Amino acid sequence: MKLNVVKIGGNVIEHEERLAVFLKAFAELEGLKILVHGGGKEASLMAEKLNIPVKMIDGRRCTDADTLAVITMLYAGKINKNIVAKLQALQCNAMGMSGADANLILSKKRTSKPIDFGWVGDIASVDSAAIRTLLENLKITPVFCALTHDGSGQLLNTNADSIAAALAVSMANFFTVELWYCFEQNGVLKNRENPDSIIEKIDFNTYQNLKNEHLITDGMIPKLDNCFHAIDQNVHAVHIGSLEMLQGATVHTTIIPNL
Amino acid sequence: MKLNVVKIGGNVIEHEERLAVFLKAFAELEGLKILVHGGGKEASLMAEKLNIPVKMIDGRRCTDADTLAVITMLYAGKINKNIVAKLQALQCNAMGMSGADANLILSKKRTSKPIDFGWVGDIASVDSAAIRTLLENLKITPVFCALTHDGSGQLLNTNADSIAAALAVSMANFFTVELWYCFEQNGVLKNRENPDSIIEKIDFNTYQNLKNEHLITDGMIPKLDNCFHAIDQNVHAVHIGSLEMLQGATVHTTIIPNL
Repeated sequence: MKLNVVKIGGNVIEHEERLAVFLKAFAELEGLKILVHGGGKEASLMAEKLNIPVKMIDGRRCTDADTLAVITMLYAGKINKNIVAKLQALQCNAMGMSGADANLILSKKRTSKPIDFGWVGDIASVDSAAIRTLLENLKITPVFCALTHDGSGQLLNTNADSIAAALAVSMANFFTVELWYCFEQNGVLKNRENPDSIIEKIDFNTYQNLKNEHLITDGMIPKLDNCFHAIDQNVHAVHIGSLEMLQGATVHTTIIPNL
Repeated sequence: MKLNVVKIGGNVIEHEERLAVFLKAFAELEGLKILVHGGGKEASLMAEKLNIPVKMIDGRRCTDADTLAVITMLYAGKINKNIVAKLQALQCNAMGMSGADANLILSKKRTSKPIDFGWVGDIASVDSAAIRTLLENLKITPVFCALTHDGSGQLLNTNADSIAAALAVSMANFFTVELWYCFEQNGVLKNRENPDSIIEKIDFNTYQNLKNEHLITDGMIPKLDNCFHAIDQNVHAVHIGSLEMLQGATVHTTIIPNL
């Protein structure tokens, strides 16, 4: 049986209309599915309103206790529950969750050396059997926010791309899994200046070459690392593109095993 | 089979130590169980910090869109997920949810006449079959926050006492249900000045008499109305008292059918 795991980021969540378009397309996807959402800028705006200073080390944000509280309010609260209510209105039986819920995703707090990122978790395990029961027996569509826990009472901020990849990999034991990363571009670009230069198929060797030539940089690297990890671990297909790719219309990038 | 439905209010949630004592007692309860939690003062404090004015009509708070957003952040986000993570650390397989999740509790927005309370819902139905599957097949302990939805994409602020009663009543079709309301007193008092004047057993006639004599007033009335509704609808027993009653130690009030 097929399972679609779809990840959306801030660029979809932050715009009411885009979110509505996406949720309609997602609700219309046939068969079993899981949604994973990031948070977007709302958490930063809220932290600002509450006078919680943004702590950065080496250009990367640190999750101190106050920031974790804000993230938990927005990701697991406002964003997650509004997505769930909207999907329910579209006849999609969504159920919102974090990795702490039913102990579905257990993480390990990232070590504080060399850089202390605060309450950030790296995924240790996924309870794929429980998720399978939710999907098959309860006919539920899980909607995951970007939070997990350490099993000792501590919530942990966890990268949404990594959550989507870990879910796809673990569910590949039971299903033919396709993983979809919806983001702000139509796909991986050969030339960042030209939005039409989409690489339609990319294998690991091509990825390495493009990285060496500095054509793929920054945030695209961890995203593609997640993609190739998933393909290596028996995920059937991985796609990167705009939210419109879910409707089958647009050109996008598909990750393929080495030819 | 027995099912315990336990409701805690702000007086437990707001105090870290009391919450820890309660969660330990709750985690140690044997058999199937459901937790329902209110929100407490944190939502009001957050609304204040965000300069969201408190709207009151006839002494009762109105849930406008901004207030609903704050409630969703705190109830479904911060409070719910922290309780879940802490229960998981106590080996209780908690899963946090609102009524929107898996469409478990459907409500109807309260009519705006005579008083417009805003985004407030009155419970219309509970999906007891799905909750039973969560409890029995998935061995999950549901943790409900005080939010439901209208099925058309709108979240609704919903009284936590009413959610606990509605869950208890609907699950009484499958289980021998005991409903526990943990609040700031040791039970229903015959004399509000004397915390030791606990009425250990109260039936509907006694309740009516105490109400007529103005010995039971204010917030106690809707709470007891929920209790008697539950007893009328085949809930096996309803208890009101401090959180310590869960440990079986203290005197508290038990609601009984008319003698």
